[in-house]
Amino acid sequence: MAKGEVSQELIEKLKSIVGEKYCITDKEKLEPYGHDEVTDPHYMKPAQCVVLPANTQEVAACVKACYEADTIMVPRAAGTGLAAGAVAIFGGVIISIERMNKILEIDKENMIVTTEPGVTTAVLQNTVKDAGLFYGGDPCSGDSCFIGGNVATNAGGNRAVKYGVTRDQVLGMEVVTPAGDIVELGGKVRKNATGYSLMHLFIGSEGTLGIITKIYLKLVALPKFSMDLLAVFDNLDDAIALTPKVMNAGITPVCVEFMDNASIKQVEVFLNEKLQHSDIGNYIIVQIAGDNEDLLDEQCEKIDELAREGNALDVLVANPTVIWKSRKAYLEADRARSLVFSMEDIVVPMTEIPGAVSQISRLGEKYNVAMHCAGHCGDGNVHIDILKDDRTQEEWEDMLPKIQQEIYKLVYSLKGRVSGEHGIGFKRAALMAKYTNPVEIEMMKAVKKGLDPKNIMNPGKVVDVTK
Amino acid sequence: MAKGEVSQELIEKLKSIVGEKYCITDKEKLEPYGHDEVTDPHYMKPAQCVVLPANTQEVAACVKACYEADTIMVPRAAGTGLAAGAVAIFGGVIISIERMNKILEIDKENMIVTTEPGVTTAVLQNTVKDAGLFYGGDPCSGDSCFIGGNVATNAGGNRAVKYGVTRDQVLGMEVVTPAGDIVELGGKVRKNATGYSLMHLFIGSEGTLGIITKIYLKLVALPKFSMDLLAVFDNLDDAIALTPKVMNAGITPVCVEFMDNASIKQVEVFLNEKLQHSDIGNYIIVQIAGDNEDLLDEQCEKIDELAREGNALDVLVANPTVIWKSRKAYLEADRARSLVFSMEDIVVPMTEIPGAVSQISRLGEKYNVAMHCAGHCGDGNVHIDILKDDRTQEEWEDMLPKIQQEIYKLVYSLKGRVSGEHGIGFKRAALMAKYTNPVEIEMMKAVKKGLDPKNIMNPGKVVDVTK
Repeated sequence: MAKGEVSQELIEKLKSIVGEKYCITDKEKLEPYGHDEVTDPHYMKPAQCVVLPANTQEVAACVKACYEADTIMVPRAAGTGLAAGAVAIFGGVIISIERMNKILEIDKENMIVTTEPGVTTAVLQNTVKDAGLFYGGDPCSGDSCFIGGNVATNAGGNRAVKYGVTRDQVLGMEVVTPAGDIVELGGKVRKNATGYSLMHLFIGSEGTLGIITKIYLKLVALPKFSMDLLAVFDNLDDAIALTPKVMNAGITPVCVEFMDNASIKQVEVFLNEKLQHSDIGNYIIVQIAGDNEDLLDEQCEKIDELAREGNALDVLVANPTVIWKSRKAYLEADRARSLVFSMEDIVVPMTEIPGAVSQISRLGEKYNVAMHCAGHCGDGNVHIDILKDDRTQEEWEDMLPKIQQEIYKLVYSLKGRVSGEHGIGFKRAALMAKYTNPVEIEMMKAVKKGLDPKNIMNPGKVVDVTK
Repeated sequence: MAKGEVSQELIEKLKSIVGEKYCITDKEKLEPYGHDEVTDPHYMKPAQCVVLPANTQEVAACVKACYEADTIMVPRAAGTGLAAGAVAIFGGVIISIERMNKILEIDKENMIVTTEPGVTTAVLQNTVKDAGLFYGGDPCSGDSCFIGGNVATNAGGNRAVKYGVTRDQVLGMEVVTPAGDIVELGGKVRKNATGYSLMHLFIGSEGTLGIITKIYLKLVALPKFSMDLLAVFDNLDDAIALTPKVMNAGITPVCVEFMDNASIKQVEVFLNEKLQHSDIGNYIIVQIAGDNEDLLDEQCEKIDELAREGNALDVLVANPTVIWKSRKAYLEADRARSLVFSMEDIVVPMTEIPGAVSQISRLGEKYNVAMHCAGHCGDGNVHIDILKDDRTQEEWEDMLPKIQQEIYKLVYSLKGRVSGEHGIGFKRAALMAKYTNPVEIEMMKAVKKGLDPKNIMNPGKVVDVTK
C-alpha cells in the first residue's frame, strides 16, 4: 500500500495545480471530509488534505502528483455513502469532484445526457425532465448525492424494478487511471462489443480503480402518467407476499417498496405527522407509470384485487408527496433516534424476501434490539437498521457481529449477497471477504492489482490486496 | 503464451475425464471445429483435439488437465461467431460446451431462467414463451447459436432498442477459471453491489477469461400484441433519418432495422422471391409491442405519419414472417454470392447513422466493390458486407485494409467503435488495437494478465498480451 502521510512537498505541488484555495488543509474545513453518512465513529477518520480540482486535466495532474509521491488517493463525491468508501481511513489525499458540477449536454435526439460527476442527482433528474426526458436512476439520497458517486457505487434505489440500477443507465465514462492517464470507456454508443467492458468494471468499483470525470447516461421518454398505490397489511408476511404477485401479473411497476410497522412508527415520530394505519400497518407502496391512462387504471384495479385477496387492510391511491416523504425519511428517522446504528443492505432472490424478512425480524426479539426493515422488495433488496440506542459501545460491538453473523448466514443460504446497493467500501470489506467464495475474492484482487499495481487508489476498500 | 501442441499424454488424460467418445481427435470429425462463420481462410485453423464435457465438473477437470500440461484452451459454443473467437488459431484443446444443453429451471415467480450454456437461443426463447414469459435477447443467428456464446460475446441483435443486448439479460453465471476453479458470479439477485462486477467483465470477454458453465437470465412478461411496420424509401438518407424521429416521438420500439437497396436485391436473388419495392427501395422495419392494442394503433399511426413526412414511398403493416425472413437472410444472401466477404460491425451514436452509412456506401463506388448495408439503426449498429466476388486473394488482401482504414477513421471520428455486437476475437484484434486508446488496451491487458496469468485461456483473442 502507498503512503498515508501527505508530505508538505506534495501539498505544495497540489496547490500549484488547483490553486491554494482549492487545496484544503485547515482542520475545521476538513471536518466534513472525515466521514460519510455512517455514524459509527469506527468508520470516520479526519482528513489531512482535500483537493478540489476544477476539471479532468486538474484531476489527472493531481493524480500524477500523488502517484509520483507514492501517496494514497481517495476519490470522493458528495460523501453520502453508507460504506465509508470515500473516507481516508488509511490517510492520503482526498480528491473531491464537487467543483465538477456542470451538466455538459442534453442530447435530445440521441436521448443521452453528458455530465460531470459532481452534479447532484436530483438536479440532473430535474434538468432532463425540463427538457422533456427522464433519467431512470433514483437513489433515496437523490437530493444530496452526486451522479459520479452513483456510478462509482452502482447506486440502486426505488425505480430499479422498471429502470434498473445506475449501471443500467450508463453508456460511457471518462476516467483518470491511478497513474493519471485519461481514458474514455464507452460513449454515446448503445451497443459495444469492442473488447472487455472496463466501463462495467468501473461501475460499482467505489473509486478503487480510478476517478470518474465524465459520464454519458441513457435517458428515456418521460412517462405521461404515474400513480402510487399504498397497500396496508397487519401481517408482515402478507405484505411482502404481494410483491411477486404483482410482478407475475404482467405488470412492471416502477417500484415496489416496503416499510415494516416499526419503521412507520419511527417515521411518524420523526416527521411528527400521523401516518395512515400506523398502529398496526405494514406498507407496500407500488408505483406504476406509463403513457396510457386506461392501461394504468387496469393495472391499478389488478393490484387492488391482488392486495385484497392477500389480506390487505386497506388499499389506497396515495398522495405521492406524502407517501414518498415517509418512505425516504426512513434513514433519517432511525438516525434521529439512535445516532449510531448499522444499516444492513441485504439482497436475495425476490421470492425469498418474505422468508428472509420475517426470520430477520425475529432476531430483534432474540437480541432485544430495535430492528427496522424497509426497502425495495420489488428487486429483493431490503435494508435492516439495527439501532444501538443507549447501549454502551462495548455492548454494541459485542452484539452487532452476532446479529450480522445470523443475518448473512441466512442471506447466503438463500443465495443472496452482502450488499444490494450500498456497496462494500471499508465498512463491509471484512463481511464480504467472509461470505464470498474465496475464488471470487482472489479474482477481484487480481483485477485490482492489475489496474492499480501500486495499491494507491483508495486502497483497503472493497478488497484489501494486502490481506 | 501456453503451448499450442496437444500432447498424447494430455489427450489420454482428457479421454479419462470425458470418455473416449467425447474426446475428438479424428481429422474428419474435427473439421467443423476448424472455423466459425467467417469464410475467409485466414481465420480458419484445423483443430487437433476437441473435448465435449458433460457438466461443470468435467469442464473443470479438463481445464485443470490443460492447465497442468500448460496447453492452450479454446472455449467453444455453437461456432456461429463472426470473429474467429472460437477457432484454435494458436492450437490447443477446444473445449466445446455443446453437450451442456439443458434448461435447468424456469422460475416463473422470480421470472428467471437458469440454463446450461449449450442451449440454442431459439430453443430457450421458445421454451420460456411456452411458460408464458419472454426472453429479450434475439441475435439474428438465434436458430443456431448457443446462449453461452451469446453471453460470452455479449451478442446484440434486433431487439436491443427495447430490451438491451445480452448483457442486459444476465443476472448471474457460473464460470470455470483458467486454473479450473468453479465460481458463481451474481445469481438470482436483481441488485448487487458486492464488490467488482466480475460477471460484467466476463460478459463479452469471448472465452478469454474462463468458461461459462451456467447462466441466470432475466425474463419479462410476454407482450400481448406485436406489430411490424415496413417503411420504404427511394433515398437512403431519408430512410435512416426516420430512426431518431421514431425514438424521439416517445415510442420505444422493440427494434428499428434497416436494409439498403443492394441488400434487398441480394436477398431477393437468394430467396428467389419478389420483395416489395425491390427496384429502388431501402427498408426501415419497425417492430412495436405491448399489452394495449389501442396504444399500439396510436404508435402505428404516428410512425406512419413520420415516415410519410420523411418522404417514404410506402408504409405497410408487414407480415412478420415474410419481412423477418428477408432481414435475417441478409448474411446468407451475401455469403451465397461471395463465399469470402468481410462483415464490418460498426457502431456509432444513433444520430450519426445517416451520415456514416451514406459516406461508407460511397466507398463502394470508389473501390468498385459491392458493399451491402443492413442492421440495427435503432441502436446505431450497422453491418457492412464487403464482398470479394471474383477478385484474386491478392487483390482482396490489398483492397480490404484500405477500405477498413477509411471506414474506421470515419467511425472513430464520429465517436464510434470497431464492433457493436460481433466482437473482436482474432479477426478484429489488430483493428481494435489500432483504433483504441492505448491506455484502454493496456488496461484490458492488465485484466487479462491478472485473471489468466499463464495466458492459457483462448490467448491471442481480444487482446494479445504478448504484443
